[in-house]
Amino acid sequence: MTTTSTSAPITEDEIMQAHLGGKLSVGATMPLETKRDLSIAYTPGVAQVSRAIHANPALAPTHTWAGRLVAVVSDGTAVLGLGDIGAAASLPVMEGKSALFKQFGGLDSVPLVLNTTDVDEIVETLVRLRPSFGAVNLEDVSAPRCFELEAKLIEALDCPVMHDDQHGTAVVVLAALLNAAKVTGRTLADLNVVISGAGAAGIAIADMLLAVGAGDVVVVDSRGAIHPGRTDLTPIKAAYAGRSNARGVTGDVVDALRGADAFVGVSSAQLPEEALAGMNQDAIVLALSNPDPEVMPDVAARYAAVVATGRSDFPNQINNVLAFPGIFRGALDAGALRITQEMKVAAAHAIAALVGEELAADYIVPSPLDSRVAGAVAAAVAEASRA
Amino acid sequence: MTTTSTSAPITEDEIMQAHLGGKLSVGATMPLETKRDLSIAYTPGVAQVSRAIHANPALAPTHTWAGRLVAVVSDGTAVLGLGDIGAAASLPVMEGKSALFKQFGGLDSVPLVLNTTDVDEIVETLVRLRPSFGAVNLEDVSAPRCFELEAKLIEALDCPVMHDDQHGTAVVVLAALLNAAKVTGRTLADLNVVISGAGAAGIAIADMLLAVGAGDVVVVDSRGAIHPGRTDLTPIKAAYAGRSNARGVTGDVVDALRGADAFVGVSSAQLPEEALAGMNQDAIVLALSNPDPEVMPDVAARYAAVVATGRSDFPNQINNVLAFPGIFRGALDAGALRITQEMKVAAAHAIAALVGEELAADYIVPSPLDSRVAGAVAAAVAEASRA
Repeated sequence: MTTTSTSAPITEDEIMQAHLGGKLSVGATMPLETKRDLSIAYTPGVAQVSRAIHANPALAPTHTWAGRLVAVVSDGTAVLGLGDIGAAASLPVMEGKSALFKQFGGLDSVPLVLNTTDVDEIVETLVRLRPSFGAVNLEDVSAPRCFELEAKLIEALDCPVMHDDQHGTAVVVLAALLNAAKVTGRTLADLNVVISGAGAAGIAIADMLLAVGAGDVVVVDSRGAIHPGRTDLTPIKAAYAGRSNARGVTGDVVDALRGADAFVGVSSAQLPEEALAGMNQDAIVLALSNPDPEVMPDVAARYAAVVATGRSDFPNQINNVLAFPGIFRGALDAGALRITQEMKVAAAHAIAALVGEELAADYIVPSPLDSRVAGAVAAAVAEASRA
Repeated sequence: MTTTSTSAPITEDEIMQAHLGGKLSVGATMPLETKRDLSIAYTPGVAQVSRAIHANPALAPTHTWAGRLVAVVSDGTAVLGLGDIGAAASLPVMEGKSALFKQFGGLDSVPLVLNTTDVDEIVETLVRLRPSFGAVNLEDVSAPRCFELEAKLIEALDCPVMHDDQHGTAVVVLAALLNAAKVTGRTLADLNVVISGAGAAGIAIADMLLAVGAGDVVVVDSRGAIHPGRTDLTPIKAAYAGRSNARGVTGDVVDALRGADAFVGVSSAQLPEEALAGMNQDAIVLALSNPDPEVMPDVAARYAAVVATGRSDFPNQINNVLAFPGIFRGALDAGALRITQEMKVAAAHAIAALVGEELAADYIVPSPLDSRVAGAVAAAVAEASRA
């Protein structure tokens, strides 16, 4: 614990100091002070609970913590902006994620970081550990492996699985675009959207926007706009090429943004001002790269009606913490076995709706610290799961 | 939480009710209330810690929780007295174990229960998860697989590994025998010991007693005393046969106890009164089967000078909780990569020493609730590790 005032700049020493011993702690939810306590929580009493679960496996989720426990799983191949730094070095991030699950979703979670990057080995490991948890939050797994890994895990495990870098991001981006369209007098169907970055987040955002009927969606990777004529596409991008880019855009991000209404940046590629200049009136710019946005908000504001970043020091912070605690909470509350597209869309609408009457160009999503968010998202997700 | 008085009998309903939602909770060890908090614990601050660990892996144990986290691992094949009930049904026991680690050793731990009983698959799973934890407490794995599993894990993992059903039990039994010998004016070298049960605990106790120089050790399984002439022995028992039973005992437990000084029961086999009658004067009887001791203490007391059980409702409760929290705490405090025989023997002496001047026939080990125990054991184990 530090006594530094909250306005003081954060020093490197302070960060390292704060991480000494890690950031998580496991405690008991019942007292263990007396022989009687021990006889209930441990032998001989606990044998009765084990017998009951053995006789009726449906009691496992209700009479252990597994039913409300999220495994935060990573192989450390795409950690923040740091890349493939390995499992051990990814653990501080996963501990932070677990802390956020508790703080915002009231959910227990445990980081499981793996010394293997083989998709099938990761799946096999989690299948073996299946009775230990109730849901899987995949985190910081590199593309395109993350797509295959998530798909195989969903197939192999009878519990909610979500790669947050994909879908958590897509949910919050959808919420932001819904409100950005609204504040500029349009709907999602009116928007030509250009996404810069075809990694985990870019592909998931594109999928989500296509699913909910955005006007047009173009994804730009490091070689330009993705379209069916490209011969250099990975299978994931190729599959996607046929479903998007109705306008038939080719060329680079400058070409793609000509006549576009919204930009979503989820790569570290800097956005030239000339690209912004070609966008339609009332442009929407979500420059989400961290810590350096694709374009700084003051520059973007010269061309755009609504600007958002991933940073906490500018308005409109697009942060996954708005989504994942409530999504997992809702899925677990409802006993859902899958996190469906409908549940994610419901989460986005719930986030957008919380802004309410205060909607403004500089307030399109709630603050990540808004304590109402997770509960509202959880309720919407649980309802969508039951529908 | 219950408001029932501590003297009220424990009902089945109360036990099931107490287990609703499980017994563990994960929390953050630092505040997450402000944007500043989030910037330290999560992005962007956490990236600095990840970078530091990537550059210097030696920081992983100090700057994550893994360095003080015990994985409580089971495949559910030998759970309490319930046998092979599977991983899911074993979880309440593992949660209880984690709760005890925290309460008595101040250690964080996480249950990992596995849907496989294949020794190599369990090893492979934990090798893959190695960066996630700092030590492994194996629990409730059936014999003889538990011997192979523990040996392979020790070989494969560069961290402390201990099968508690073996070594935790052996440590507390050694502590009890040291003090039982003392209170009857003898030393361990004076004792002919008969162990009933050749499972995980029986073999580990025999190993431990032989290592510290007990007078003689005879293990009796369901077919009688183990000796080199037996042709029906498993490889583990056969290896053991050549090293024990200096008296050359054959026959059943009645034969084995004739002229013996101490009985250690770690099977559910009932001990006939005629067997007790053949023991030497000042006999020591540790009837540790739970919940039904091999012989009830009032019966044993007719023949023995010192009697102990595994139950909390009789004097001299022999309970692993006297050993494992301190052993793991000491090993992790010292940064030990192995839990050696010397560390276990040091733990036993530390437990025995805490009884001090109050040593009596009905007080040979401290109470499982004695808060001094784990600290004393940890200190002795850490010292033995550094020696």
